[in-house]
Amino acid sequence: MNGPTWLLQADPILLSALREDISSEDVTTNAVMPTAIPGTVDLLCKEEGVIAGLPIFARVFALLDPEVKVTFFCQEGDAVSKGQRLAVVQGDIRVLLSGERVALNFLQRMSGIATYTRAVADRLNGARTKLLDTRKTTPNLRLLEKYAVRVGGGHNHRFNLSDGVLLKDNHIAAAGGVKEAVAMAKAYAPFVRKIEVEVENLDMVRQAVEAGADIIMLDNMTHEEMKEALSLIQGRAETECSGNMTLDNVAALADLGVDYISCGALTHSAPILDLSLKNLRRV
Amino acid sequence: MNGPTWLLQADPILLSALREDISSEDVTTNAVMPTAIPGTVDLLCKEEGVIAGLPIFARVFALLDPEVKVTFFCQEGDAVSKGQRLAVVQGDIRVLLSGERVALNFLQRMSGIATYTRAVADRLNGARTKLLDTRKTTPNLRLLEKYAVRVGGGHNHRFNLSDGVLLKDNHIAAAGGVKEAVAMAKAYAPFVRKIEVEVENLDMVRQAVEAGADIIMLDNMTHEEMKEALSLIQGRAETECSGNMTLDNVAALADLGVDYISCGALTHSAPILDLSLKNLRRV
Amino acid sequence: MNGPTWLLQADPILLSALREDISSEDVTTNAVMPTAIPGTVDLLCKEEGVIAGLPIFARVFALLDPEVKVTFFCQEGDAVSKGQRLAVVQGDIRVLLSGERVALNFLQRMSGIATYTRAVADRLNGARTKLLDTRKTTPNLRLLEKYAVRVGGGHNHRFNLSDGVLLKDNHIAAAGGVKEAVAMAKAYAPFVRKIEVEVENLDMVRQAVEAGADIIMLDNMTHEEMKEALSLIQGRAETECSGNMTLDNVAALADLGVDYISCGALTHSAPILDLSLKNLRRV
Amino acid sequence: MNGPTWLLQADPILLSALREDISSEDVTTNAVMPTAIPGTVDLLCKEEGVIAGLPIFARVFALLDPEVKVTFFCQEGDAVSKGQRLAVVQGDIRVLLSGERVALNFLQRMSGIATYTRAVADRLNGARTKLLDTRKTTPNLRLLEKYAVRVGGGHNHRFNLSDGVLLKDNHIAAAGGVKEAVAMAKAYAPFVRKIEVEVENLDMVRQAVEAGADIIMLDNMTHEEMKEALSLIQGRAETECSGNMTLDNVAALADLGVDYISCGALTHSAPILDLSLKNLRRV
Amino acid sequence: MNGPTWLLQADPILLSALREDISSEDVTTNAVMPTAIPGTVDLLCKEEGVIAGLPIFARVFALLDPEVKVTFFCQEGDAVSKGQRLAVVQGDIRVLLSGERVALNFLQRMSGIATYTRAVADRLNGARTKLLDTRKTTPNLRLLEKYAVRVGGGHNHRFNLSDGVLLKDNHIAAAGGVKEAVAMAKAYAPFVRKIEVEVENLDMVRQAVEAGADIIMLDNMTHEEMKEALSLIQGRAETECSGNMTLDNVAALADLGVDYISCGALTHSAPILDLSLKNLRRV
Amino acid sequence: MNGPTWLLQADPILLSALREDISSEDVTTNAVMPTAIPGTVDLLCKEEGVIAGLPIFARVFALLDPEVKVTFFCQEGDAVSKGQRLAVVQGDIRVLLSGERVALNFLQRMSGIATYTRAVADRLNGARTKLLDTRKTTPNLRLLEKYAVRVGGGHNHRFNLSDGVLLKDNHIAAAGGVKEAVAMAKAYAPFVRKIEVEVENLDMVRQAVEAGADIIMLDNMTHEEMKEALSLIQGRAETECSGNMTLDNVAALADLGVDYISCGALTHSAPILDLSLKNLRRV
Repeated sequence: MNGPTWLLQADPILLSALREDISSEDVTTNAVMPTAIPGTVDLLCKEEGVIAGLPIFARVFALLDPEVKVTFFCQEGDAVSKGQRLAVVQGDIRVLLSGERVALNFLQRMSGIATYTRAVADRLNGARTKLLDTRKTTPNLRLLEKYAVRVGGGHNHRFNLSDGVLLKDNHIAAAGGVKEAVAMAKAYAPFVRKIEVEVENLDMVRQAVEAGADIIMLDNMTHEEMKEALSLIQGRAETECSGNMTLDNVAALADLGVDYISCGALTHSAPILDLSLKNLRRV
Repeated sequence: MNGPTWLLQADPILLSALREDISSEDVTTNAVMPTAIPGTVDLLCKEEGVIAGLPIFARVFALLDPEVKVTFFCQEGDAVSKGQRLAVVQGDIRVLLSGERVALNFLQRMSGIATYTRAVADRLNGARTKLLDTRKTTPNLRLLEKYAVRVGGGHNHRFNLSDGVLLKDNHIAAAGGVKEAVAMAKAYAPFVRKIEVEVENLDMVRQAVEAGADIIMLDNMTHEEMKEALSLIQGRAETECSGNMTLDNVAALADLGVDYISCGALTHSAPILDLSLKNLRRV
Repeated sequence: MNGPTWLLQADPILLSALREDISSEDVTTNAVMPTAIPGTVDLLCKEEGVIAGLPIFARVFALLDPEVKVTFFCQEGDAVSKGQRLAVVQGDIRVLLSGERVALNFLQRMSGIATYTRAVADRLNGARTKLLDTRKTTPNLRLLEKYAVRVGGGHNHRFNLSDGVLLKDNHIAAAGGVKEAVAMAKAYAPFVRKIEVEVENLDMVRQAVEAGADIIMLDNMTHEEMKEALSLIQGRAETECSGNMTLDNVAALADLGVDYISCGALTHSAPILDLSLKNLRRV
Repeated sequence: MNGPTWLLQADPILLSALREDISSEDVTTNAVMPTAIPGTVDLLCKEEGVIAGLPIFARVFALLDPEVKVTFFCQEGDAVSKGQRLAVVQGDIRVLLSGERVALNFLQRMSGIATYTRAVADRLNGARTKLLDTRKTTPNLRLLEKYAVRVGGGHNHRFNLSDGVLLKDNHIAAAGGVKEAVAMAKAYAPFVRKIEVEVENLDMVRQAVEAGADIIMLDNMTHEEMKEALSLIQGRAETECSGNMTLDNVAALADLGVDYISCGALTHSAPILDLSLKNLRRV
Repeated sequence: MNGPTWLLQADPILLSALREDISSEDVTTNAVMPTAIPGTVDLLCKEEGVIAGLPIFARVFALLDPEVKVTFFCQEGDAVSKGQRLAVVQGDIRVLLSGERVALNFLQRMSGIATYTRAVADRLNGARTKLLDTRKTTPNLRLLEKYAVRVGGGHNHRFNLSDGVLLKDNHIAAAGGVKEAVAMAKAYAPFVRKIEVEVENLDMVRQAVEAGADIIMLDNMTHEEMKEALSLIQGRAETECSGNMTLDNVAALADLGVDYISCGALTHSAPILDLSLKNLRRV
Repeated sequence: MNGPTWLLQADPILLSALREDISSEDVTTNAVMPTAIPGTVDLLCKEEGVIAGLPIFARVFALLDPEVKVTFFCQEGDAVSKGQRLAVVQGDIRVLLSGERVALNFLQRMSGIATYTRAVADRLNGARTKLLDTRKTTPNLRLLEKYAVRVGGGHNHRFNLSDGVLLKDNHIAAAGGVKEAVAMAKAYAPFVRKIEVEVENLDMVRQAVEAGADIIMLDNMTHEEMKEALSLIQGRAETECSGNMTLDNVAALADLGVDYISCGALTHSAPILDLSLKNLRRV
């Protein structure tokens, strides 16, 4: 993780997930193992990808039992490959079994997002364009998923409706025009917020620049329109382009020179990275 | 949903997701719309699939504002197609805008799971084999995801470690054998639980049958081994087969005659179903 | 307790109980003891019974102050007698005084249930019949009470409405018959659930067996009817008998040969076991 | 209930109990009743007693479904008798079935306490002595249980360690004497608190009176000692007597003239009052 | 309030405050009023000021009892004067009494902040400089207090450590210089964040401008230094000045031409606005 | 703090405040300090006052990181002066920066209340009259604020509506008179509660004494009336006087001989005590 602070927010998510999976006790394990059995188990990688969520993985076990120790053989954000031993977990075998599924569910999803993000970002390689996430995240896991995007080499867009301003067509219509909407947003929002405007044509681009928008989002424009828009803007605002970007079509935008490309698929459709706990043994 | 009871469990998840996306207020909307504006918006389908989560979609708006009305033009579990208008949402336009993302995030994920489940289940068509989910669900969304599996035509395996018994190799080793493990589980678990044993070879199959296991899970066996296992079991236990089942390889098992096939991909790797709210207009 | 997992669920109950009893501070203790005073106190048994809840007792003090140490001179499930010293608690006397009532309230209730359960189970001694609890538990303490039943020698029925299927007369009527009800339950419930049917007469017994019920509950039948029912069933389903079973009338069923007898009184009417903390002294 | 205010505190308890019993859904009911079925069910009394908790009983159903209506044929605190129809509950039969157990679990326990309290209070009939509860309540249900005591004709002692001062032997020892303890408590506690001192002999009685204690608790004294203590106190403090009071021994104290008798058994050992929901029918 | 969304965040605060003041019931009111009594009470202003928090005031009563009606005779942000009748509250007199203190505690504090903010802002009258709040708010009430600042005519700085970037001396030292710190912040923070740098001398001002800081905070500078700093910056960044600003010293900065002045006293030291509920009467 | 018990109640408040200020992470700090940096920072006093809340200050850092150590050079309740070094905090500099604001927000507010309380109490110096707080506290911080009042030399009135009885004019009117109101309160409230009556004239004073009120509150009376009231009461009840008492007018009551004076300003209008963390340095 990136600092000592955000476990404040992660712990409740992890505890809730543990309580979802262990609503009373691990019946199977407790039936056959009445007392503690010291042991270890390996975290193995089963396909190529990018690992993300190692501190979360370790924290799941720590919340079950502070005695469990996790030793990592890789670092957050590393490219990992099939068969690679990523970590060893040591402690009461009952805890290793009871925490396995929850720990893996987090790690696999976060690594899946980092892996997909890295793949998309690589398609933009060499370009100055940066990759952004969106608010199309799994409900109640946004913090972890946006973190995984960063680990994978992407950047974060606003966290939610409260910490960023994005004026869309309906907002502009309600305000009576781009200029009015930007002015109302500047007057209302905390002054540390940049004002972003979503535009659909060159006329709106012009209005947004004149209104002093900090960021202009080119939404579902053709390649030609985007080019023209960028030459109109001439660096007077940051630029973002969006609209069903995926691994398959993002490369076509690499030469455009836009500042940012946002991509919902990073968090809404990345498959997991296949990982498993193997070689459980007594010590 | 399937009854008047489980909103008890869904409401906290929905409220938490709304609070994640609106940690103080929808700054953009509130900046440009100081007072209520009555309007409607359409829920449109953008690709072929199976819809799941309609009551959740409606509930998100109701939790923001009880005055919002959602009228559906389809039913839970319906096959839906590109361009189809699935619902109309009516209320204060500010609420429609503020609730849009959270409502769609739920509906798209649940429908994605239902769509993928239906596709996998169709590959088993004609066979007596039923499709099962696993515990490889998104942390804290298991209730909704297992429901989406049912809507898509799948069946539910145990909900968590507390409400089902599944003896794996490490449990069996700790108990000292299949027979001992089954006996210990029967003595310990609530008597309404079926006892399931995971087996890896024919010898273990034999032991599991003799021990009186209610369900036998054939894990990562070859097609041949599974056939032999089933003929050994001869209906004396229910049978489940598992091990990296996906849309691509499940058809090969359709003729096997196993009772259940479990498939983690239903919940860990289904892409979302693309849906959107369009045509916002004042009324 | 039976493993490392269920304190996840117990801790919130214990903390809530401590906050109920100490909504700001222990005014009396804090008034007269401005600083810590090391000491010990004995846990004494004041009547004959079965002890249950020792880990909960210790955990209450640990949640108040991790420095408190509890040393037990008995084990969970032991028969205990009047005057017996069960444990010594060592730590800041202020903590010993402030935690006393909550710790005892849990331990006395759980031990009361274990004691009553053991007494009822003893009346079935020699018989193959097992004693079951019900859902007639104290609201929000079901986890602890069902655990205490097991400590006392009883077995657990389903935990709640979500993890077990029990078809009663109204369910059967709604479904249109026993056969239909069982079929609907098998189609709907997770496949790891056994299906139980409550029957009131021999005709329903026959239908339940034919429908493939896993468990048949004989409800409020006469001794004669139950005998006939059991000979009809002939081991094709597990059998449970229920209906106002108490310490006073359960012995009459011992020779019946039913698999299980369920008894609400275990949790709804067991008196507490009298215990106390005595001999507080400085060390 | 006694006013519009304390549902603030009761609702979380009730919702938690409903979630304990319905952790996902009522599988059985939902399996056989896919849609709502209007109906009614009767609340019947199965033994003589005092009813307490009617608003809680109704609230449980309201929290599940605001459409459910409960009509009562008796009032809180009424003496009720075997066979008496206490209420009719009207609504979706699925809700009536799903809420039944939780609603009864509360009502039976609260009525059990009221019934036992009334019985004990009756033994003091004619005397000026009032009956008090203690802190020996079920963890997390103190609010409801102390209310039930009042419904049954008892009075409430302090709610918890924070809202009442009770100086026991260890407090007195730490302070250096009765006089010092009372002075320290008066200096420390909110000034609206009465100061109560627990005494074990006549010497302590004298000291407590002189120290200006508001209440003197005579703990485990003989009948003779108590008489002498009361004549020493002569109304200069309120008096309470305590120590394993039950239905069986309380009458002996009726003529003593003490102001209050406290009795832990009211809440820790009262058996439930037998009630049931019967005659479910469609309407 | 500014929209339909943020009650999501306010309700938990209000319910918690009600539970703080009514931990079981309103003993006094319930003792003397066993049944509902319809009535009204007036909200009166007792000194000159600015009113803020009217929707919160009304919501407190609604959470206690949805039947209560509040009719306002003023609007959020109005200047109010001694003796003015601001609202009438109508409902069960028991609810009016039980909710009074909590409703007033919120309204008086929020109005106190709005009043103080308006007074400080008035000292800047005519100037283009805007008044900002800080993070020096009451713990757990930041949302309400920052809202009150806006009602009083102030503007909001960042909400917390997560939604704004402010590089102070220690951050700059750790990064190795202003330039490096700004670069690291731009690389790390969500791209919608403006980067603010706190500077203490003209050299740092120069570095901050060159590093591309969006906002420059002039911290504890003399009037002369600030003038020079502003002429150095020449509009290439927004400017904020801070450092123990209060009602007494802010006017001196009005002619400076800085964009923003931030003032912790708005939220940490504003006295309440004196308001009361009077003229309770039956209707 | 005054004992080992009330952190039970304080921890949730502190965690919630930390989560308010760090809703995901400390972006600024984490951007420039990717790894831990050991260091220390001084807690300095910037104006004369009374310090209160030291254990809360330390606990904030401990909740962020148990490795942080706080060494105090003063004690709770000490008079402190400008420039005084009150404590040194040692740990990861990132934690020192991230926790600074929340820790200070608590400490400054609590010390502000203690300082103001001490000042008001000093005006009563030599008199036997004690200073009381009220329920006019900051919502959800009552526990901490009433504690700060005690540290400053004040005493606590009732904590909330549930733990104290205070009969005001409307209660008396509903009951039908002072005598009736007192009788109803005695019958209804827990017997450990003193009964307080608020009176507005000498006639009510007489009635209150006769009714056996434990405390009589003289509300908004003239100096003369209060004198007469006290001579009427003659020690037969405790006396409290209230009504817009502040630092400026309280001295006038010092010679009156009333037992208590209650003062809302202690908690609703005390300015903070100015404190800061300075001299951050690596070690």
